[in-house]
Amino acid sequence: MKFSKRIIDMQESPIRKLVPLSEETKKNGKKVYHLNIGQPDIKTPTEFMDSIKKYDEEVLSYSFSEGLPELIDSFISYYKTYDINFEKDEILITNGGSEAILFSILAISDDGDEILVPEPFYTNYNGFSSSAGVNVVPITTKAENGFKLPTKKTVQSLVTDKTKAILISNPGNPTGTVYTSEEMNMLRDIAKENNLYIIADEVYREFIYDGFEYRSFATFEDIKDRVILVDSISKRYSACGARIGMIGSKNKDLIKQILKLCQGRLCVPTLEQIGAANLINVTPKYFNEVVAEYKKRRDVVYNALSNMENVICKKPHGAFYIIAKLPVDNAEDFVKWLLTDFDVDGETIMLAPAEGFYSTKGLGIDEVRISYVLNEESLKKSMKILELGLKKYS
Amino acid sequence: MKFSKRIIDMQESPIRKLVPLSEETKKNGKKVYHLNIGQPDIKTPTEFMDSIKKYDEEVLSYSFSEGLPELIDSFISYYKTYDINFEKDEILITNGGSEAILFSILAISDDGDEILVPEPFYTNYNGFSSSAGVNVVPITTKAENGFKLPTKKTVQSLVTDKTKAILISNPGNPTGTVYTSEEMNMLRDIAKENNLYIIADEVYREFIYDGFEYRSFATFEDIKDRVILVDSISKRYSACGARIGMIGSKNKDLIKQILKLCQGRLCVPTLEQIGAANLINVTPKYFNEVVAEYKKRRDVVYNALSNMENVICKKPHGAFYIIAKLPVDNAEDFVKWLLTDFDVDGETIMLAPAEGFYSTKGLGIDEVRISYVLNEESLKKSMKILELGLKKYS
Repeated sequence: MKFSKRIIDMQESPIRKLVPLSEETKKNGKKVYHLNIGQPDIKTPTEFMDSIKKYDEEVLSYSFSEGLPELIDSFISYYKTYDINFEKDEILITNGGSEAILFSILAISDDGDEILVPEPFYTNYNGFSSSAGVNVVPITTKAENGFKLPTKKTVQSLVTDKTKAILISNPGNPTGTVYTSEEMNMLRDIAKENNLYIIADEVYREFIYDGFEYRSFATFEDIKDRVILVDSISKRYSACGARIGMIGSKNKDLIKQILKLCQGRLCVPTLEQIGAANLINVTPKYFNEVVAEYKKRRDVVYNALSNMENVICKKPHGAFYIIAKLPVDNAEDFVKWLLTDFDVDGETIMLAPAEGFYSTKGLGIDEVRISYVLNEESLKKSMKILELGLKKYS
Repeated sequence: MKFSKRIIDMQESPIRKLVPLSEETKKNGKKVYHLNIGQPDIKTPTEFMDSIKKYDEEVLSYSFSEGLPELIDSFISYYKTYDINFEKDEILITNGGSEAILFSILAISDDGDEILVPEPFYTNYNGFSSSAGVNVVPITTKAENGFKLPTKKTVQSLVTDKTKAILISNPGNPTGTVYTSEEMNMLRDIAKENNLYIIADEVYREFIYDGFEYRSFATFEDIKDRVILVDSISKRYSACGARIGMIGSKNKDLIKQILKLCQGRLCVPTLEQIGAANLINVTPKYFNEVVAEYKKRRDVVYNALSNMENVICKKPHGAFYIIAKLPVDNAEDFVKWLLTDFDVDGETIMLAPAEGFYSTKGLGIDEVRISYVLNEESLKKSMKILELGLKKYS
């Protein structure tokens, strides 16, 4: 039996494809520190489960396709704190940020169309695009200069008559880059001049360090019709398993179109929406503590990497990822080797080979993405394991 | 700003698009009986919430992309009672039956490919297909003869070199049809002779009346590589808001391919999977009572329709839907009129215009789908309202 071309073309998740190997490693008695996946160890605010435990409807029925009104309201209130003003009919609740990205792509591009994405990028951008028959055109950026965007001329040269949008995560996954106003203005200008959408994935909005300034693409008045804000509670509230995301756009007609896709999958789970709606009651204290904790972790990982011989990385200022260039020929082989052939006192680490975050062939082969989502102690041990591993591997 | 062709081509859900109108009607103080949507009023078994309320992990983390092992196991046990033997690597948990259908289509067909579907069909089949650039080719069936499949020759004549699968719901939504062995054998032969998949949507498996026999496509040994079973707990356990579905196939390579799509959306919500896994402990008594209740309801609706002048419908033997041909020119206009201009003692009904369940232009214009998901009393009142409405409307 044959499979579709699109599914064959779709790559396996570089973050998840080695999971069977790590499960095997654990079965053999080794402890594995998971730095491969953005699964924080931060406690989910109790507000989430509290409201779910109070649920007492006798019939767990369908919710509205556009989302539970309370949850839409809670997103509206939340955005006001960022000077983003959405109305009720400008927001759609989705199954995680993942569905928000997929639906955005489907709504604005057809088979064979193109979307510009700064590379390296969140690997699923590629997955979603290829399942939709849309080609990701990379705007290549490099570890050596902290993944800065290239010049306007370079970006402009990538635009064709098939280009429909620029898709960008800010702060960036997997790079941890926080884009400057100059970079954002440049993308805005390109969007205007070439009639493009900007799909702004801002799920790491809260995680910004070193006093860096953050601005949402949703606050640009002059491109408000072009901006599709993609969001998720997964990282913000350490609630990855809730799968609650959102699409927001001042382009009400676009929202109406995307609603058809939402109707197709009927609704997002009712209980998770009830839990998520109550997260609006989480105090700012929670974020202050969480952000301080991540900054500390970033420092542990960045400082350790900086002191390792022949490892290249610039200090990232957002999200909770670092891309590091390692002194190895093939990072995936090294990652596998760490799982199967190496340990320090019965412990090893799992990293995400970065090749899958690039669409340009040959790039990222010697890089890994490290998620600093574990506590300081575990991160210190993990960095020691990496250092010793690199020494032994060479 | 432009939208994609695929999103513009996508129809609004005929079941959901009139919801704003019914919300308006309710705001004006009228009671609306919802016979438009398959949202049962049957209590969700307490097993579902019981296990969720016991959840005490501090971090609500990602689950496995393929699904929670306990839930996969519970599906395996459940299928054994239907002589369907799945192994762990033959099942993927999905966001409702909806995602199961979408992923199945994406995995086996590319832009421009075709899928045969008995018409009238579950309206979202069209939505999913058009979002994937795949064309639904209808196998037309008719209310007048109980929506029986046409001859093998007729079905065969619809196959082209673009045809990739037959997608069928059994028992059927929106028709309530339970296919005979002859009909199933015929589809099996066509699948074999033309190298097609069969996507078998069997979410109404339990709801079969009048001693009709049910057989799953998954039990056909000689096409086990071709069968993709699509399932959901929504109707079976009256848990529509849980959005837990499943793909099952003995074609392990296909499952591996679809897993890439599952990885793309990371996972299905953790809590809902925990709740669903515990539903395996619901006793057969539950189903016996529920099925008896639905049979009673089916009788109320069918008998009432049979006694209405110029209304045509054959007795359906499965699921909880009836398609009825009404003596009106345009059923959608009539459905709107019932909401806006008609009531009996302050009460009215909402039906689903059936045109959206057909892809052949012009078919179903004078038909509605009635979901008998309310209690006997409400259904009796609803049928009275329909009868009086039809009289007044003409």
